[in-house]
Amino acid sequence: MGGDNAPRAVIHGAYLALRERKNTRFIFHGRQEQIAPLLEEFPALKPASTVRHCDVVIAMDEKPSQALRKGRGTSSMWMAIQAVKDGEADVAVSGGNTGALMAMATFCLRPMEGISRPGIAAIWPTLRSDIIVLDMGATIGADAQQLVDYAILGSALARCLFDDDMPSVGLLNVGTEEVKGLDSIKDAGKILAQASGAGFTYHGFVEGDDIGKGTVDVVVTEGFVGNIALKTAEGTARQVGRYLSSALKSNLMSRIGAFFAMSALNALRRKMDPRTVNGGVFMGLNGIVIKSHGGTDEIGYKSALGLSYEMARSHLIDKIGETMKRFPVQAVQAAPVTESEAKPA
Amino acid sequence: MGGDNAPRAVIHGAYLALRERKNTRFIFHGRQEQIAPLLEEFPALKPASTVRHCDVVIAMDEKPSQALRKGRGTSSMWMAIQAVKDGEADVAVSGGNTGALMAMATFCLRPMEGISRPGIAAIWPTLRSDIIVLDMGATIGADAQQLVDYAILGSALARCLFDDDMPSVGLLNVGTEEVKGLDSIKDAGKILAQASGAGFTYHGFVEGDDIGKGTVDVVVTEGFVGNIALKTAEGTARQVGRYLSSALKSNLMSRIGAFFAMSALNALRRKMDPRTVNGGVFMGLNGIVIKSHGGTDEIGYKSALGLSYEMARSHLIDKIGETMKRFPVQAVQAAPVTESEAKPA
Repeated sequence: MGGDNAPRAVIHGAYLALRERKNTRFIFHGRQEQIAPLLEEFPALKPASTVRHCDVVIAMDEKPSQALRKGRGTSSMWMAIQAVKDGEADVAVSGGNTGALMAMATFCLRPMEGISRPGIAAIWPTLRSDIIVLDMGATIGADAQQLVDYAILGSALARCLFDDDMPSVGLLNVGTEEVKGLDSIKDAGKILAQASGAGFTYHGFVEGDDIGKGTVDVVVTEGFVGNIALKTAEGTARQVGRYLSSALKSNLMSRIGAFFAMSALNALRRKMDPRTVNGGVFMGLNGIVIKSHGGTDEIGYKSALGLSYEMARSHLIDKIGETMKRFPVQAVQAAPVTESEAKPA
Repeated sequence: MGGDNAPRAVIHGAYLALRERKNTRFIFHGRQEQIAPLLEEFPALKPASTVRHCDVVIAMDEKPSQALRKGRGTSSMWMAIQAVKDGEADVAVSGGNTGALMAMATFCLRPMEGISRPGIAAIWPTLRSDIIVLDMGATIGADAQQLVDYAILGSALARCLFDDDMPSVGLLNVGTEEVKGLDSIKDAGKILAQASGAGFTYHGFVEGDDIGKGTVDVVVTEGFVGNIALKTAEGTARQVGRYLSSALKSNLMSRIGAFFAMSALNALRRKMDPRTVNGGVFMGLNGIVIKSHGGTDEIGYKSALGLSYEMARSHLIDKIGETMKRFPVQAVQAAPVTESEAKPA
């Protein structure tokens, strides 16, 4: 029920996702009277679908605490997460209020043993291939241990999605000579260097431009920086796209050129379409929850549902558990982390 | 003497800058035996130039403390800054070691009264027009007062470069509902809201994608985030540029299209050329120092020198002083800033 175009875009997206992955099954949580007529419009989807009626719906502007009070055990958002907890569903997908979704998911599914708090991972297209960047803003600030947790979670996700048994992990840092970065990052680097080989290879520090280059498979950062980096990149991509459109409209010759290059330019447009990489993955909970962009359409939901399918198929939660088991305990103990390390240096 | 292509690229860049701004005068600090033959290659530059011989040159990998010990009072970098202090030069420009340059500039020129520490400002091209973003990594972490200082410095720079008497200022923050940003940012927002009108208009919080949109004239953030945002944007622009090149080479029709659109695509390439916005401005010192990208060529130096000229012409230092005088003292006092506010919330 969440997001700008729900439930129509969700149902339509599920129909498109089903065409690509025939053995998907859907449980739609929300207002029966809105969902049922939409299912009539997509008859192929009906046999694969169950509708669970919920009266309570979380609004996009509700505060997480408020949403939790109002919607715990009753709202469509909660019920979707509860279905994961009960083993009825493999993944919960929502285009709703991010804060409420994170609060409910954390409250209902609980953080995995050994993980102090969840993070949100983004799949980021780069010049090399897709990579994982986390945390995208689940929380602000991170001490060394929390950055190490993100590395474990991110590398497990990379192993699921990229079929790479030993993904490389980099810690996002500033590279100029005069600033040495935060103590938390340096300490996390020491721990990860010792643990390198336990389900990932530790590459070292990476800078902002290494994200787009695809220097590593997993970029680890705290949530504030991750959120700013993601949105800055989205803004820059849109900016360059607009520059290109105006350049191609600037004169008669450029219009003719655009006509000839149309199929290549359309392919480029598809490649840069943010809907094709829709879905922030909540990592570190006992169950998978995916946040779709709220403003997306059926194409965006199709992508988020496809991503969910891949994660269920590749047993993400088991992969995280494996990495945690392989992680050398002494590495973590070697560099004790104190409260003060979360401070900027 | 600093940077990958010095001193040739510097001298060549000065020659190009002089052609655009005839009344520029240059003092070149460095090794006479390397500089003199280059001036012979650009005879038009000779009458506008003075060479000051320095034996000591700071290496790109020297630590700031080391550089300061070795090069204080003797090195080409120090002497260029000293010329600003002595009133011989309006601006010092260097393509050398950023950390050493910042350390020497701070030591030699000293922070302006009322400014706790300097910041580095970038001129950032956006969909609307160029804007200012600071700090780009002069220091890591910032309390509310330091963010307010950056707002004062950045708005003065905007008034100099954009001929706008009341630039808008935004504080970079994460916009999701569940995270409220850092206390330091919230407190800086309160102070700036009270001071709005004193040489700038306070717009409020902005997100990462507002940078590329050009939502405000000045984006204020602490140095770690600013550095990551800048490099992520550079990386994304390069990534999209590469996507475009491969798309246009993908088939015969697209190659024909690229041929017709060549002049428009070349204009786009020039627009996106990072050399045209080269130059990080050290803000908050009693004198102007500009850091050129070390890896740039003569076009990059020409841009950095043109930027320097504009800053001297528009009396940047006076403009900062004016803003500080207009800034209501009670606004700063209204929200006392404590050490703990520099911590992540």
